[in-house]
Amino acid sequence: MHGLEDRTYTSDAEPGDHVTVAGWVHEVRDLGGIAFLILRDTEGRIQVKFEKDEMDDELVETGLGVARESVIAVTGAVDEEPRAPTGVEITPDSVDVLAESDTELPLDPSGKVDAELSTRLDNRTLDLRKDEVKAVFEIRGEIFRAAREAFRDANATEITTPKIVATGTEGGTELFPITYFGEEAFMNQSPQLFKQLTAGSSLERVFEIGPIFRAEEHNTPRHLNEATSIDFEGAFCDHEDAMDVCESVIRSAYEAVERNCEPQLEALGLEAEFEAPTESFPRLTYEEAIERINATGELDEQLVWGDDLPTEGEHALGEDVGEHYFITDWPSEIKPFYIKDYDGDDTLSTGFDLMHPRMELVSGGQREHRYEELIAGFEQQGLDPEEFEYYTKMFKYGMPPHAGWAIGAERLVMTMLGLDNIREAVLFPRDRQRLSP
Amino acid sequence: MHGLEDRTYTSDAEPGDHVTVAGWVHEVRDLGGIAFLILRDTEGRIQVKFEKDEMDDELVETGLGVARESVIAVTGAVDEEPRAPTGVEITPDSVDVLAESDTELPLDPSGKVDAELSTRLDNRTLDLRKDEVKAVFEIRGEIFRAAREAFRDANATEITTPKIVATGTEGGTELFPITYFGEEAFMNQSPQLFKQLTAGSSLERVFEIGPIFRAEEHNTPRHLNEATSIDFEGAFCDHEDAMDVCESVIRSAYEAVERNCEPQLEALGLEAEFEAPTESFPRLTYEEAIERINATGELDEQLVWGDDLPTEGEHALGEDVGEHYFITDWPSEIKPFYIKDYDGDDTLSTGFDLMHPRMELVSGGQREHRYEELIAGFEQQGLDPEEFEYYTKMFKYGMPPHAGWAIGAERLVMTMLGLDNIREAVLFPRDRQRLSP
Repeated sequence: MHGLEDRTYTSDAEPGDHVTVAGWVHEVRDLGGIAFLILRDTEGRIQVKFEKDEMDDELVETGLGVARESVIAVTGAVDEEPRAPTGVEITPDSVDVLAESDTELPLDPSGKVDAELSTRLDNRTLDLRKDEVKAVFEIRGEIFRAAREAFRDANATEITTPKIVATGTEGGTELFPITYFGEEAFMNQSPQLFKQLTAGSSLERVFEIGPIFRAEEHNTPRHLNEATSIDFEGAFCDHEDAMDVCESVIRSAYEAVERNCEPQLEALGLEAEFEAPTESFPRLTYEEAIERINATGELDEQLVWGDDLPTEGEHALGEDVGEHYFITDWPSEIKPFYIKDYDGDDTLSTGFDLMHPRMELVSGGQREHRYEELIAGFEQQGLDPEEFEYYTKMFKYGMPPHAGWAIGAERLVMTMLGLDNIREAVLFPRDRQRLSP
Repeated sequence: MHGLEDRTYTSDAEPGDHVTVAGWVHEVRDLGGIAFLILRDTEGRIQVKFEKDEMDDELVETGLGVARESVIAVTGAVDEEPRAPTGVEITPDSVDVLAESDTELPLDPSGKVDAELSTRLDNRTLDLRKDEVKAVFEIRGEIFRAAREAFRDANATEITTPKIVATGTEGGTELFPITYFGEEAFMNQSPQLFKQLTAGSSLERVFEIGPIFRAEEHNTPRHLNEATSIDFEGAFCDHEDAMDVCESVIRSAYEAVERNCEPQLEALGLEAEFEAPTESFPRLTYEEAIERINATGELDEQLVWGDDLPTEGEHALGEDVGEHYFITDWPSEIKPFYIKDYDGDDTLSTGFDLMHPRMELVSGGQREHRYEELIAGFEQQGLDPEEFEYYTKMFKYGMPPHAGWAIGAERLVMTMLGLDNIREAVLFPRDRQRLSP
C-alpha cells in the first residue's frame, strides 16, 4: 500500500539506514538555499533536509510546497546531524503526498497557538495530534490495562452488562429514555443491579469497564452525561475487602503509569511531580471527617452528624489529608438504600467513598443481600419493588453477602493528571451542549 | 465479616488443614446415620460429613436442614477421603447460614433438570451457578484479555467512543432513538466514525471493545439488539495490514483459551476437540468464493459477479473450506460507501469479511480517506453530508490512508465454543422480546 509495507517509525530511523517514514508535515523551515521539513508520526519527529540547488526541482517543490498537517511518505538516507531535533536527518530521494491538508487549520496541532476547549473538541482529530493531548489518552489506555490486571489478580472475571434497561438503578438520578421496539426503556446509569446479579452466581467476583449515562443537568468541569465506569462487585466480600480491592486497582494504575508512561508524563510536564502512592490510603470514619472539617474553620457553620459533606468541606479536608483517603461509616440516611447497615446498628452504613483530595472518586459499600430488607429498602425509597422483580427475586435463592464499588474513569484520569476539566479526559465528551462529534 | 476473613477456597483445602469454606449448598445426601453435604464455591466443590450420633444435634440440624442453594460457611478439619468427589472432606465444628434459599427453585443449578433458554435468562444468577455456563463467561473474559494484549502488541491504543450520537453511521440499519435534553439523538450502532477520527490523529492505531446497538427486527439465534463490538482502526494500514491484525487478535484469543482455560473447556466438554488455528487463514477473493460456492452445487441458481452471498452459499463454502477464511476483493456496489475501492478500479472494493465456517465474524476494509470521494460517497448513499460534517471536515486536514474492522464479540464466543444460540454468549441479552433482567 503506497509503498508503505516497509514503513519505519521516526524513532527507529538510525544513521546509515535507508528508510521510508510517513506522517504529518509538522513544520517547514525555509532558510533560503536549504530548508527543513519536520515530519511527525505516532512515535516522534524527524528532520528532512532539502538542499535546493543539489536536489531535483520537483522533489523540492513537492516537499516544501505541501501544507502543514498534510500526510506524506518520505524515502531517503538517514544521517547523523547533531543540530537536528533528534540528532538525525533524512535526505529524501522521494516525497509522496498521501493526503494534502487545507492551508487554513481550525486549530494548530503544533500547540503554538492556544485554542479554546470547545474548538479543540470540535476538531478532536487535530487536537489529538498534540503530544500532550495524545499523552492523556495513551495514559488512559494504560490505566485501563493496569486496572484490569489488578482485578484479575483479585480473582475477578470481566463482564459486560446491558446498557439498555427497563428500570433505573437509583431513584433520584435522571435517566435518558429510549424507545425500544415501541416500549419505554432507559440507558443504564450504573451496572449496579447486573453486577450484583452476577456476583451472586458462581463467578463470585466480577468487574466491568463500560459506559454509563446520566441525564443530570449539571454543567460543571467535573460532570459528564456519558461517562466510563470502572465497577467491581465481589461475593463474600464486606466493605473492608471491597476497599482493599479498590485501593489495589488505583495503586496499580498509578504504578503502571509511573513505570510505563515516562514519555507521556514528560509531554504533560509531570515527570518531576508524578508519584504513585506509597502508603495505604487512610480510612477516616464520617465522624472523624466532620470533626476534621470543622477543625479547619473553613465552613461558616459547623457540620453535625447526618449532614452531607459540602464541596468546600471536602476541599478543606482534602487539603488537610493531602492524599487519597476513604470516608467510611456514614449515616445510613445519606447512603443509598441498597447499601447494608452494620449488623446491630441500622443508623450506621457500611458505605464508603474514596476521595482524591480534589473530589469524590469512588463510592461503594457492602450491599443489602437479605431479601426482606431489600424489598423494604425499595419501598422506603418510594420505588415499586415489583418493577425490580427481575432483580429482587434472585435474592430469594441464596444471595451471598457481597460488596462493591464504582470509580468514574474520567475522574481518575483527571485527578491523576491534574486536568482542569473532565472533558479533557474523554475523547468525545457528552454534556448538555455537546452531542457531536 | 461473618468470620470470613480467612475464607479458604474449596480447591485449596488440604488434608490436615482447619479451614472455613463458604459457598452454596449444592447437594445433600442423607444415608441415615451419616450424611454428606456438597458445598460449592467459585473454585469447585467439597464434601462436608455429618455423623449424626457423634455430632452436636444443632450442628447436624443446621447443616442438613438448610435448603439447596442456600449460602453457608463451614468451619472444620479437612481429612483425606478417597471416596469423596475431590478426595477430601470436612468434619464441621460449625455451620453458619449466611443466606437461606427458598426450597422451590425456578431452575436447577446442579443441571440435573434441563431448562429452557428463556427460563435460564430470567434466572441468570442461578443459571450462572452451573459449571458449563460459568465456563462460557470465564472464557469470554479471557478472550477479551487476550484480544487487548494482541492489540497492544500491534501498537494500538485502547479508546472509548460515545454511545450517544447525533447521527447513525450506516444508512440502512435501524437506530434506537433517544431523547437527549430535548434533542433527538441515537444510540450508536458502531464506533466506525469515531475510531476513524481517532486513527487520523497521532494515536494512529486504536481499538475499542464496547457495546453497539442495532434496532434490527431480526429474531434469530445469531442476532442481538445490543452486542459487544471489538473494533480496530489503523492509520497507514491497508486492508492487508488490517487482516493481519485481525488474524492475530483471533488467533491470540484461541491460543489463550487453549492455554489458560483448561477447566472451562472441560466443563463444556470441549477439552478433546478444542484447537487453536495453526495455519494462516486462507484469503479467497469474492470471485473465487462464488466459483467455489457454485461448484458445490448446493444452490439452485448459480451466483454471478455482484450477487450478495446467500446464507446457504456461506454454509456450503464454510463446509468446503473447513476453517476461518477471509473473503476479499468484493464488488464495490455491495460494500459500504466508506470502504475504499482499489486504486484504478472503482468497481473493486478493498472490503473484506472474515468467515467462521458457520457465519460471518468480521467485516472491514481500507477506508475512503479522500475528502472529495467521501462526500460523493455520502451523497450516493442518499445521506446528507452536512449532517456528518463533524466527521467529514477532519478529512480536510491530512487524513492518512487507514483501514480497520469490527468483530462481534458474541459471535466470536459463540463460534469458538460451538454455542447454538448467541444469547448464551452474553449475560443479559437484549432482543425484541427481552428487556430484563
